Amino acid sequence: MIGLGRMGAGMSRRLHRAGVRVVGYDPNPEARARLAQDGIETVDRLEALVAALKPPRTVWLMVPAGDPVDQVLAQLAPLLAAGDLIVEGGNSYYRDTLRRAETLQARGLLFADVGVSGGLWGEREGYGLMAGGPPEAIERLRPILERLAPGPDRGWVHAGPVGAGHFVKMVHNGIEYALMQAYAEGFALLKAKAPFQLDLAAIAEAWRHGTIIRSFLLDLIAGVLREDAALADIAPVVADSGEGRWTVQEAVDLGVPVDTIAAALFRRFASQDPERYGDRLLAALRHAFGGHPVQRAAS
Amino acid sequence: MIGLGRMGAGMSRRLHRAGVRVVGYDPNPEARARLAQDGIETVDRLEALVAALKPPRTVWLMVPAGDPVDQVLAQLAPLLAAGDLIVEGGNSYYRDTLRRAETLQARGLLFADVGVSGGLWGEREGYGLMAGGPPEAIERLRPILERLAPGPDRGWVHAGPVGAGHFVKMVHNGIEYALMQAYAEGFALLKAKAPFQLDLAAIAEAWRHGTIIRSFLLDLIAGVLREDAALADIAPVVADSGEGRWTVQEAVDLGVPVDTIAAALFRRFASQDPERYGDRLLAALRHAFGGHPVQRAAS
Amino acid sequence: MIGLGRMGAGMSRRLHRAGVRVVGYDPNPEARARLAQDGIETVDRLEALVAALKPPRTVWLMVPAGDPVDQVLAQLAPLLAAGDLIVEGGNSYYRDTLRRAETLQARGLLFADVGVSGGLWGEREGYGLMAGGPPEAIERLRPILERLAPGPDRGWVHAGPVGAGHFVKMVHNGIEYALMQAYAEGFALLKAKAPFQLDLAAIAEAWRHGTIIRSFLLDLIAGVLREDAALADIAPVVADSGEGRWTVQEAVDLGVPVDTIAAALFRRFASQDPERYGDRLLAALRHAFGGHPVQRAAS
Amino acid sequence: MIGLGRMGAGMSRRLHRAGVRVVGYDPNPEARARLAQDGIETVDRLEALVAALKPPRTVWLMVPAGDPVDQVLAQLAPLLAAGDLIVEGGNSYYRDTLRRAETLQARGLLFADVGVSGGLWGEREGYGLMAGGPPEAIERLRPILERLAPGPDRGWVHAGPVGAGHFVKMVHNGIEYALMQAYAEGFALLKAKAPFQLDLAAIAEAWRHGTIIRSFLLDLIAGVLREDAALADIAPVVADSGEGRWTVQEAVDLGVPVDTIAAALFRRFASQDPERYGDRLLAALRHAFGGHPVQRAAS
Repeated sequence: MIGLGRMGAGMSRRLHRAGVRVVGYDPNPEARARLAQDGIETVDRLEALVAALKPPRTVWLMVPAGDPVDQVLAQLAPLLAAGDLIVEGGNSYYRDTLRRAETLQARGLLFADVGVSGGLWGEREGYGLMAGGPPEAIERLRPILERLAPGPDRGWVHAGPVGAGHFVKMVHNGIEYALMQAYAEGFALLKAKAPFQLDLAAIAEAWRHGTIIRSFLLDLIAGVLREDAALADIAPVVADSGEGRWTVQEAVDLGVPVDTIAAALFRRFASQDPERYGDRLLAALRHAFGGHPVQRAAS
Repeated sequence: MIGLGRMGAGMSRRLHRAGVRVVGYDPNPEARARLAQDGIETVDRLEALVAALKPPRTVWLMVPAGDPVDQVLAQLAPLLAAGDLIVEGGNSYYRDTLRRAETLQARGLLFADVGVSGGLWGEREGYGLMAGGPPEAIERLRPILERLAPGPDRGWVHAGPVGAGHFVKMVHNGIEYALMQAYAEGFALLKAKAPFQLDLAAIAEAWRHGTIIRSFLLDLIAGVLREDAALADIAPVVADSGEGRWTVQEAVDLGVPVDTIAAALFRRFASQDPERYGDRLLAALRHAFGGHPVQRAAS
Repeated sequence: MIGLGRMGAGMSRRLHRAGVRVVGYDPNPEARARLAQDGIETVDRLEALVAALKPPRTVWLMVPAGDPVDQVLAQLAPLLAAGDLIVEGGNSYYRDTLRRAETLQARGLLFADVGVSGGLWGEREGYGLMAGGPPEAIERLRPILERLAPGPDRGWVHAGPVGAGHFVKMVHNGIEYALMQAYAEGFALLKAKAPFQLDLAAIAEAWRHGTIIRSFLLDLIAGVLREDAALADIAPVVADSGEGRWTVQEAVDLGVPVDTIAAALFRRFASQDPERYGDRLLAALRHAFGGHPVQRAAS
Repeated sequence: MIGLGRMGAGMSRRLHRAGVRVVGYDPNPEARARLAQDGIETVDRLEALVAALKPPRTVWLMVPAGDPVDQVLAQLAPLLAAGDLIVEGGNSYYRDTLRRAETLQARGLLFADVGVSGGLWGEREGYGLMAGGPPEAIERLRPILERLAPGPDRGWVHAGPVGAGHFVKMVHNGIEYALMQAYAEGFALLKAKAPFQLDLAAIAEAWRHGTIIRSFLLDLIAGVLREDAALADIAPVVADSGEGRWTVQEAVDLGVPVDTIAAALFRRFASQDPERYGDRLLAALRHAFGGHPVQRAAS
């Protein structure tokens, strides 16, 4: 396991508890130390990681998407032998995955991409796993997938050829954006209905059971609101990672309308923008054509 | 229980099984007969229903929203005595509920509105219930709510004063529209990625476990796709009931942006419209300014 | 002319210059004084207005939509004689117009509703006018419509029966919201392309001529940006009047998807909301499932 | 002028009438013949085109975006001398333009990109032109830009460095998508208001004068509706070219919300899709959870 952050560490522990031998590597000594406390073997160099495994090796990358993946692969690939299997489990763009697979397969390495969902809960409840790659790679991975997933027969899928794992995970995250936005709109609406003085935390909790809209996200929302329904000291700024963006761009390429996913992404963009130039222009424009008053910006 | 359709019958059976005495009424003899087969007492007139209950009575309406509710209430109210409780459990617009409550309370009747979620699954798994009304009404209802819900302490909420039950149910359904649309967009995107030949049914099934987007709706989607992933003989026409519309109209009244809910509603509208005048105008307009070719409509 | 605000005063002056006799009334003495300076007859009571006109009278209301219209009508109607014509030129909801027409027609009065577009520019360039009412009312109005409009044969339309004028004006304003939003998005995008350092004012000016997107709104945008392209001291808060809201609510009633109009309205709502509860919930939720950091709100 | 299609031919004629010497080339003999009838010199090979011009040459490409541009440039560049200027006037993606500029500048050629708007109307009324490139290129182009535009001082802009012309044209087209969609929604809404029996052609015509929403597109809409307001034999299928897609993808890259532009693009996608898989899934899903009836697809 290369990369012992939140996800990589949790997965390592889940596998270790399931009796799978895991060797962990991370350039950060604190990350290694935390994992070592759980009784998991760690190494401080990639060479040591490779040396610690018997061929054919299975090396799982759990590092941030983008350049870090390319850097690790550039160092790792020359250390491996033909027939070794590299598994890329990050939130990578599937087009990068296709490119990387070509390079690695040319070296005789097996390559699989696995989208991993579950966040902080995955370690205990099991991860949702979407795998892409040739059948022999997925077969070799199967015991690991079965243990990382909530059950051997559930929560993982061989989605298709290389790239399909990250593609399906990307769409998963696009859907997630829209689901979150849907709930956020609903709770904002409940809150806006001032005369009813609705208890949002109690409603969220009740909705978790028996309703059509019950879901894991709603469970989390109920937990958030139970602790703090006013959210007064949370800034209304919603970050986005690459996958929502890629989902919309892919949908545009494929000619598929994704109204709610794009709306969710755009709301995040708007939340991140303190300037709001478009709104300024609209305010000035209303003044221009109708003499409507404008507010002056606070200096 | 007045109204023995899908919802009213299922609720009656769930209560009956839980040891609650239920007397069912429906103008349709077949609906009565079906319920009678389950050992539940039925009557063929409202007067008989009222006579069969000891004051203070609790009468639950489960009839289609709109005029049918007003008609039943107009017949029922004069038969009841002060202190009797009417519960309106349909998908009514909360503004109608406020109006009805005023009339009924003026007659000395108690009134509560309960939004009921759960559909066909509710009978077995319990219903999600959102109740509005004065505390004494809800207290009297409590044993019934506890038995209709998935558990005595879960899946039901006293949301607020009269009207709050239907308001919260309305928002619940608005969220439901957007959640459904989010999944529909995601699966359409998976399907459009032709080179990967993704197995949508297998992906839906895997997503049910361990992922962030797992939900009751996803369980249903997996069931639908397991039976028929091509959906070739399902017409792409999505009906809407009142609640999605009301949600958007209320949001506009309250000044709350509901991008994904409105998008979901508009997609349903579009699916229902065979004419698509706006699209015709756009096609003709492109021809007008750019000489772009237009397709002729099939005659 | 009842109501001598920006619109009523400008229309009075345009008619006066065209040789139409205008008698102006406004409860505000300053508004009357301003109009009197332009040589237009004013009165300080409705009774005097009615007395100053020979039957059959034509009385044009240009007062704020909502209660003010009802109040003026309640005072005015008893003063008028059968056969007099009331013209309601405000931005009224057409459903209010239908209700008012019924009442006034029962008194033997003629009633017409005229949506008036053109804002501050209308006085000089002529107003766009959308009239609803019975043919005899519109025929009587024709000389006035021909003079208020940019030309006798252009810029005004007898749209249909009573209510149609305000309905068409409502849709006009709904379209206007979406057009404005479209330009705002485009300019925000130009501005965001930092490496090109685009000169937004010069681009807006150039786009006014020869392009497909040239329009009156673009003329105004170019004027706004010419004066101040940074808009640094304009607050990004965009007000909305009733008509955008009604357009979306009517569209929902009629089952017509209005994606861009609703999006434009929702963006205005968002610009008006300093709390942004939904965004706070999303930020807290991301933290809950992924351990993503949240920003603390500034205290 | 390379490429004598609708746009290239119209531009050639406009320049020719303005006294600019134009030599036209197109591989299609009919396109050459049409232009020759207007008294414009044509050649049948690129070599002849280059030979017919004195250095430093100005060669304007007006060929379809994508591969055709690359193919022409590959043939053309070796024929030209250092200091010659290539102008690329198609609807190219500005990222392709940046790539091409690098190659051509390495050969000592000057390169400018000019987005051209105006469609069929441009020949008579002048084209809207958005130019990108180094100042010396634009200075050399100036006499041509001044003649192609509606006037020497209007309708053209030096937007910025190479790529900026196509970027600004891309955003122009994105705005155009949303403007068109806004009008389409409005007219669909007018049409849906059956009780008023609104005359859409008359309303469109009236809106052209005095209103806030008057525009070139509205002029065209009025023309379309004047000829045929029912649009019964126009298929409701709206094609899209690359620029709407690129605009949305760029906005996603830049983190700019473009709600109306994306909505307009997605409506076109939906109009092009006869299968509508997402809608089928929603219909099937409603059946699954609520027992709602589904329509069977016609076989």
